[in-house]
Amino acid sequence: MSEPFDAVDVIRAKRDGAVVPERELRWLIDAYTRGYVSDAQMAAFAMAVFQRGMGREEIRSLTGAMIDSGERMSFSSLGKRTVDKHSTGGVGDKITLPLAPLVASFGVAVPQLSGRGLGHTGGTLDKLESIPGWRAELSNAEMLAQLREAGAVICAAGSGLAPADRKLYALRDVTATVDSIPLIASSIMSKKIAEGTDALVLDVKFGSGAFMRELEDARELARTMVELGADSGVATTALLTDMSVPLGRAIGNANEVRESAEVLAGEGPADVRELTLALAREMLALAGLPDADVEAALDGGRAMDAWRAMIRAQGGDPDAPLPIARETCVVAAPRAGVVTETDALSFGVAAWRLGAGRARAEDAVAHAAGIELHAKPGDRVVAGQPLFTLFADEEHRFERALEALQGGWSIGSEPVERGPLVRERIAP
Amino acid sequence: MSEPFDAVDVIRAKRDGAVVPERELRWLIDAYTRGYVSDAQMAAFAMAVFQRGMGREEIRSLTGAMIDSGERMSFSSLGKRTVDKHSTGGVGDKITLPLAPLVASFGVAVPQLSGRGLGHTGGTLDKLESIPGWRAELSNAEMLAQLREAGAVICAAGSGLAPADRKLYALRDVTATVDSIPLIASSIMSKKIAEGTDALVLDVKFGSGAFMRELEDARELARTMVELGADSGVATTALLTDMSVPLGRAIGNANEVRESAEVLAGEGPADVRELTLALAREMLALAGLPDADVEAALDGGRAMDAWRAMIRAQGGDPDAPLPIARETCVVAAPRAGVVTETDALSFGVAAWRLGAGRARAEDAVAHAAGIELHAKPGDRVVAGQPLFTLFADEEHRFERALEALQGGWSIGSEPVERGPLVRERIAP
Repeated sequence: MSEPFDAVDVIRAKRDGAVVPERELRWLIDAYTRGYVSDAQMAAFAMAVFQRGMGREEIRSLTGAMIDSGERMSFSSLGKRTVDKHSTGGVGDKITLPLAPLVASFGVAVPQLSGRGLGHTGGTLDKLESIPGWRAELSNAEMLAQLREAGAVICAAGSGLAPADRKLYALRDVTATVDSIPLIASSIMSKKIAEGTDALVLDVKFGSGAFMRELEDARELARTMVELGADSGVATTALLTDMSVPLGRAIGNANEVRESAEVLAGEGPADVRELTLALAREMLALAGLPDADVEAALDGGRAMDAWRAMIRAQGGDPDAPLPIARETCVVAAPRAGVVTETDALSFGVAAWRLGAGRARAEDAVAHAAGIELHAKPGDRVVAGQPLFTLFADEEHRFERALEALQGGWSIGSEPVERGPLVRERIAP
Repeated sequence: MSEPFDAVDVIRAKRDGAVVPERELRWLIDAYTRGYVSDAQMAAFAMAVFQRGMGREEIRSLTGAMIDSGERMSFSSLGKRTVDKHSTGGVGDKITLPLAPLVASFGVAVPQLSGRGLGHTGGTLDKLESIPGWRAELSNAEMLAQLREAGAVICAAGSGLAPADRKLYALRDVTATVDSIPLIASSIMSKKIAEGTDALVLDVKFGSGAFMRELEDARELARTMVELGADSGVATTALLTDMSVPLGRAIGNANEVRESAEVLAGEGPADVRELTLALAREMLALAGLPDADVEAALDGGRAMDAWRAMIRAQGGDPDAPLPIARETCVVAAPRAGVVTETDALSFGVAAWRLGAGRARAEDAVAHAAGIELHAKPGDRVVAGQPLFTLFADEEHRFERALEALQGGWSIGSEPVERGPLVRERIAP
């Protein structure tokens, strides 16, 4: 069968800054999924997109092509509103864990298709897999049944959803074409639109621990995704949130589950609670419940009940003890003062080196590995006081993790002014 | 064995416009040749180079890395100066055929490693293969022996010469990364430097039938290559020549050999003779013979004798009849006037569609296919007079060839002013 276009012409057009017409973009993605367009051609195209950008129409075409490469799910048989959340990823970002059951406790369905960690950012599935018995892989039928009964589900995206994105993401990862706004936006939104959610709240991070270091870039990414949602009939809003410091005090897998349970018990670090509440309010507003009392749901135990039901529905035991690391290493304050910095990227890389993350997609993670921050920016400390505890299963991991922390934290004499955690809200 | 660098870091540096250090570039090319760096990674890198460019140091490192990927030849045992010529490729560009024996007739060795045609530009080896018995593949020993005896050799480059370039060129061809000055310059010069010639003259084309449409781009490419030659101890100069109109009156394979023989007999089209003489003077000047009487060598038969010796040394019969096309098609002048245009690209594509060129590297060419231009810009014609004859082995080829010529030529009432064929000379 003869092909209607030539990949070299499509690459050349984007290379030279032209707008690629919809039918050419759709052909390119389809031909790439079929294997007619090679990885090398797609890599050249991705680098051309990185350099030349894409307009709103092109991003929409690209997203549509990736959606059409696979199946589309539907939650219409549930008879209730579905709302999903997506975070662009950060350090200590366990928000999905308390958030999904909190929102579900208001009778809204929360289908949370999640991923695994790669590099210094953690993955929600890796965290939940530290709960004995819990399983991430569900069939579409199991997922629907659980949404009907427990209200919330956090599970792996099936391989039928946007397979073009799966293939393209793996390629981008090895060709330095990950951090391009059109490519990030179409990757995230193609999966969310194919998933069939009614509404979507985006947590777009900025700062050292995020893909987007600068607030302006995060804002552009958020706007691009909010537009894509609007263009596709998915009600979408975004919060721009600060990822220059780890979220909460726990980084890792099992210890982030522990911290999430604290938040679900109405306790836990103030920043994790604040962001969970802010995102819950956004999600519930999109589901038609703008006045839902989310604080009461956390403090009164309704969210915790929904959490326990959700974990049990996926085979997990919410009361089972979580894994504990074999080795620990404490970093103590060298002098008295105020903690002025705990850099998200440094702590993310350190936790990764301790075994909490993976270097290659096929690696396993160490569930008990990670870091506990006893002090965060603004906290006063005395000399010799424990600042951070590092957890690992092998003692030899501490050396390179400590190297990653070098220069990543500091103690001064005066507190440093920080902006609010939730910096902006983007709506259509 | 662990690798000293990560391909993603090297791609990212070039992507963001940084200067890539020599040892990283050398590692990248070596690792690509070994297959450790993938085609997709190299394609992303090539596109980043296309977009961001490279400085003189980087181009030199890249060229050095490609040279070091294979063997280096040496002609020092010949005991005479060696001078090579390289053309960036055009339509009707048969200059190598009369030029190599002409220069060799002065006792200079001319080792002309040539290629095959791809797309609308012809290949010297394809042309010579229309001579019965002539063979393009020689061992290094055969090549040296022929240089010693016949003085000139035109043959295929061995696979041991700059294998990284061979691999990278095939990749660039399918990823729209061919027309990047750093990549073109390093590709051409790595082969010429590895070949071991003492001196090199570059015929850098500009105009519709050339890689570089604009004179400024051709000038930048020429300067880049002249600098690379100087940096590597190869005395290099370049002529910038007009490729907006086909060279001579013959386009194809066998008919370009016929036209070359006319030039070697002191006849032939004025432009082919002019460029042959200009390049011969450049080459002989670099070989220490600035006052060589090249016109006398053409007109007196010395160059023809050298041609016959060169063809015979490679098994060819210079007196054998050349293949003749089975079908012809004549385009006649629709009205009287002056020919104002014969666009090189249009005629190149038409000849290619007639079978003179190949679409894929593994295709064969039709040796008798091509075009004869009976009129060129400036020629007065009367209505009904034959303008062009198309040659093909299959009649069905004429339709798409005639389509390619549509709008590619015109007849007006006044001659159009054209600049000189040899527009500029670039020396270190």
